[in-house]
Amino acid sequence: MAHGALDEKEISPIVQSPVIATAASSEVGTKPKATCLQQYFSEESRNFQGSALKKTTRLISNFLPLGTGRPHAELYPWTSGDANWPTFLNKPNGSEGRAGVPSTYTLANALTYGTALGAPPLVQFLTEHMRLIHNPPYQDWAVCLTCGSTSALDIIFRTFTNRGDIILAEKYSYPGIIESAALAGVEIQPVDLDDQGLSPDKLGQILDQWNTLERPKPKVLYTIPSGQNPTGVTQSQERRRAIYEIAERHGLIIVEDDPYYFIQLGPNATSDGSNPEAVSRHLVPSYFSIDKSGRVIRLDSTSKILAPGLRAGWVTASRQVIDKYAAYHDLTTVSVSGLSQIVLHDLFNLQWGQEGFSTWLQTLSLKYTQRRDITVAACHSFLPSDICSFVIPDHGMFLWISIDVRKHPMYAAEGHMGQGWCSQVEDRILTLGLANGVQVTKGSLFFTKKSSKEAELFFRLTFAAAKEHDLAEGVRIFANAVKTEFNCRGSP
Amino acid sequence: MAHGALDEKEISPIVQSPVIATAASSEVGTKPKATCLQQYFSEESRNFQGSALKKTTRLISNFLPLGTGRPHAELYPWTSGDANWPTFLNKPNGSEGRAGVPSTYTLANALTYGTALGAPPLVQFLTEHMRLIHNPPYQDWAVCLTCGSTSALDIIFRTFTNRGDIILAEKYSYPGIIESAALAGVEIQPVDLDDQGLSPDKLGQILDQWNTLERPKPKVLYTIPSGQNPTGVTQSQERRRAIYEIAERHGLIIVEDDPYYFIQLGPNATSDGSNPEAVSRHLVPSYFSIDKSGRVIRLDSTSKILAPGLRAGWVTASRQVIDKYAAYHDLTTVSVSGLSQIVLHDLFNLQWGQEGFSTWLQTLSLKYTQRRDITVAACHSFLPSDICSFVIPDHGMFLWISIDVRKHPMYAAEGHMGQGWCSQVEDRILTLGLANGVQVTKGSLFFTKKSSKEAELFFRLTFAAAKEHDLAEGVRIFANAVKTEFNCRGSP
Repeated sequence: MAHGALDEKEISPIVQSPVIATAASSEVGTKPKATCLQQYFSEESRNFQGSALKKTTRLISNFLPLGTGRPHAELYPWTSGDANWPTFLNKPNGSEGRAGVPSTYTLANALTYGTALGAPPLVQFLTEHMRLIHNPPYQDWAVCLTCGSTSALDIIFRTFTNRGDIILAEKYSYPGIIESAALAGVEIQPVDLDDQGLSPDKLGQILDQWNTLERPKPKVLYTIPSGQNPTGVTQSQERRRAIYEIAERHGLIIVEDDPYYFIQLGPNATSDGSNPEAVSRHLVPSYFSIDKSGRVIRLDSTSKILAPGLRAGWVTASRQVIDKYAAYHDLTTVSVSGLSQIVLHDLFNLQWGQEGFSTWLQTLSLKYTQRRDITVAACHSFLPSDICSFVIPDHGMFLWISIDVRKHPMYAAEGHMGQGWCSQVEDRILTLGLANGVQVTKGSLFFTKKSSKEAELFFRLTFAAAKEHDLAEGVRIFANAVKTEFNCRGSP
Repeated sequence: MAHGALDEKEISPIVQSPVIATAASSEVGTKPKATCLQQYFSEESRNFQGSALKKTTRLISNFLPLGTGRPHAELYPWTSGDANWPTFLNKPNGSEGRAGVPSTYTLANALTYGTALGAPPLVQFLTEHMRLIHNPPYQDWAVCLTCGSTSALDIIFRTFTNRGDIILAEKYSYPGIIESAALAGVEIQPVDLDDQGLSPDKLGQILDQWNTLERPKPKVLYTIPSGQNPTGVTQSQERRRAIYEIAERHGLIIVEDDPYYFIQLGPNATSDGSNPEAVSRHLVPSYFSIDKSGRVIRLDSTSKILAPGLRAGWVTASRQVIDKYAAYHDLTTVSVSGLSQIVLHDLFNLQWGQEGFSTWLQTLSLKYTQRRDITVAACHSFLPSDICSFVIPDHGMFLWISIDVRKHPMYAAEGHMGQGWCSQVEDRILTLGLANGVQVTKGSLFFTKKSSKEAELFFRLTFAAAKEHDLAEGVRIFANAVKTEFNCRGSP
C-alpha cells in the first residue's frame, strides 16, 4: 500500500462555526427565544460545559501546531485525497484476504446492527494481537471494541466509581481524565512522578498512610505508562512490577491507558517489525502482560496509530469487566460504527495480518523518532538552558518543558505567589507564542489538582502535529517567547 | 442510484460467539482465572447486565423474523454486495455535488478528529431539513449529530435526571428507555394510551393529582408519537397540542423519540415526495414543530430509514440543550465516526439534496405500506378474532396484538392470577411459535412497570424484518400457536 500523505490543509480540523448549527439566521429576531432550562439540568450536568482542552484547540488555526496531539497526515496509513479512498475497500465481491480466506465481514454486515463486543473477525484479530504482544498470565480475559478511549474512560468511571470517590493518577495527566472525573463527581489524588514516571514509593506512601476512617481508600489507579501525556516519560519494567505489587497489596484496579505504547523512539524503533512476537520482546512489558489476577483494564486506541476519525479502539480486561463494558454499549452507542469496523477489519484481516500491523507500527516509530530528534535538537539550540529543562522521551509524541520560575525577573520583586502568579506568566508566554505563529499547550491544563500552591510552570510541546520541516521553527518561536518573558539576552 | 437489495443472508445479524472474544481457548486450564471483581463495581453498574431485548435477539436465527425491528435489506438505500460499495464514495478528487459545489467534507476530514456537533456541511443539511419539515416557532434551536438514539437517550438521562427521579412515558414503551431508566436509577410513571396514543386526559390527571409532598413532580415526558413502539399507534394533531399544553402548564420537557415519523402507511405514502415542504403538509405535526418555548428534545435516527450500522442520528432542541449534548460528546465518543459522517454527507449533500432525501422517504413509505397491508390481511385471515385484536398502524413497522386472556380455557379454572400467570401463557405461545419457525416479541418486555397486577397479554409483530413473501406465513404460524394455547378449533 502506498503511504502518500494527505495535504496539511486537508487534515486540519474543521473549525466549528456556531452559526451553522443553529437555526437559519434569518429567523433571529422574528421568533421568540427558548425559555431558560437551567433548573432542569441534573446534578451531574448542571455545571458541565465539556472539554476545556477541546475548546482551546477549536479556536486555533494558522499556527505552527506544537500544542495539540493531532498527528500530522503523514503519520497515518492512508493515501491522499478522496479519489484514493482506502484501496482495500475496492475489492471485488467475495474478495479474498491475504491468506486466501474470503472475508466474513461484509459491507452488508457493516450497515446493519452490530454487536456490543464488535464484529467477531475483527475482535478475533485484536485478541490474537493481544496474545502475541502481551500474553497475560491469567486465562479469562477478553477484548471489546470501544468508541475510542475517551468513551472507554467514561464507561470505566460509570462502572467503577460512585460520586464522592477518589481515584489515583499521575500528578500531571490527560485533561480528559481530569474532566471525566469532574463529571463523575470523583476526586483525583495526585501521585508524584519523575523522569521514570509514576513513583511507586510515593504511591505506596499514599496508600499506606491513608486514613480510611476519613475517606474510603481509592480502588482505581489511572496511569499512562508509556510516553505519558503530558510528561512524555515511560515507566521502566521495574517500576511497573513495583506498582503492580502495590496494586495487589492494596486491591487497586489499574486502568492502563496506553495510546503511545507502539510509538517507540530511539534504537528499538529500528528493529525488524515483521515479527510481532520479536517486536514484543523489545517493548517494555505492559501492566496487562504482568497481570496475574485480572485487575488491569488496558485501553488501546487507533487514534494515534491509524485514524482518530474512526472513533475506535479496544479495551482488554477480565471477562467480568468486558461483560459490563458490553452491557454499557447495549444502552449507549450499541456498537462501534460498522463503517469504522469494516475499514479496520479489511485493513487488519485482508491486507496487513499481524505482521503487516507490526511492520506499520515500526514504520511509524521511525517517523516519530526522526521528529523527536529534530525537536530535541531545536530545544537544545534555542531554549535557554538555565531556565528550561526537559526529559528526552523514548515513547510517544510529547516534550514536557519545565520552566524554572525562580529565574523570572519579577520573581524576587513580586514574591512567590503560587499558581495564580504562574498562570499569568504562562498566559503571557502562550500569547506571545501565538502572536509570533506557534501554538503550544499550557502545562496547567494537565494539573490533576488545581489548588496547588506550588509555583510550577510547564508547557507541553508535541512533535506529532506540525510538518516535519516546521518543527525547529516552532521551537525557535516558542523559545523566544520564553526568553522575552524572562528578559533573557537573545530575545527577538 | 440503484436500489438493488442485499441478500437476506448478508444482512442477517452476526451472532456473537463468546469464545471468539475470550482469550485463546488453549489457555483455559493452563492459567489461573481472574479474581472476582464484584466488590469494585459502582452503585450504577453493580447489577447492570445490559439489554434483555438485545440478548433475546442474539440467540435467535433461522426463524421467520416477526420479532425484532431490524428492517430487511430491501428497506435500505444500498446496492448489493461489497463490490457495490456505495457509489457516491467513488467520486473523483474534488468531486462536485448536485449543484456543482465541490464537497467541503473530504475523506481526510473524516479520518481526523471530528467535532462534537458533527461535520458542518452535514449539520447544515440536517438543520435545513428540520426547518423545511418542522420549522419550530422559536429561534435558538440547533442540531447535533448523535451516535444513534439509544446513545442520545443515555445522554438525556444524564443531562436531566438524578437518581431517584421519576419520568413519564407511555405505559408500554421501547425497552431501551426502560433499561436506560433502570441504569440511571430513575422510575417510570406509566401513562395510559389508547388507539390514538398517549392520553392527554390521563397525563393531566396524573400531574394534577401529583402529591409533591411525597415526591417531586416529574419534569420529563418521554414519548414515541408516531408508530409508537410497541403499539404502532400515532398521536393525532389534537392530542399533540393537548399534551403540549399540559407540558407548558406543568413545566415538562418532552423527549420526542420519533424514528418512525417518515414511515407513513396508507394514502399519504403515495403523495409526491420530491417537495419536502409539500410532504411536510401531509405529515402530522411533530412536537418540535409546535414547540413555542424550546421544551422539546427531538430525536431522529438513521437506523430505520438509512442504515443502523452507521450508528448515527441527530438531536434537535434548544441551543442550551445542544450545548450540553455536545459537552457530553467531548467526554464520551468525541464525535460520530467520520466514516459514517462522510457517507451521510455524500448521500445527502452530493447525491440526494433535500428533494432526494424526501423522495427516498416516500419510496420507503410505499414499501412499508405494502408490507403492512400483507401482514394485516394475514392477521385478519389467521388470527382468532374473538381472542386477538389490534389497531391498524398508520406509521412505523409494528402491530401490537392484544390477546384476551379471559378467553383462555384455564382462565376460569386457574382464576385470575395476574401478570405471573399471563407470563406463562406468553412463554408457551412464544416457544410454540419458535418451534414452528416464527419469532415474535413478548409484550411483557415493553411494560414500563413490571409490578402490574393486571392480567395483560400482548405480542409485538413487525413487518420490517422478514422477506415480504414470508410475512403471511409468519403470521399463520403465530396464529396457530395462539389457537393451540387457547384450544381453539382450527389449530394445527
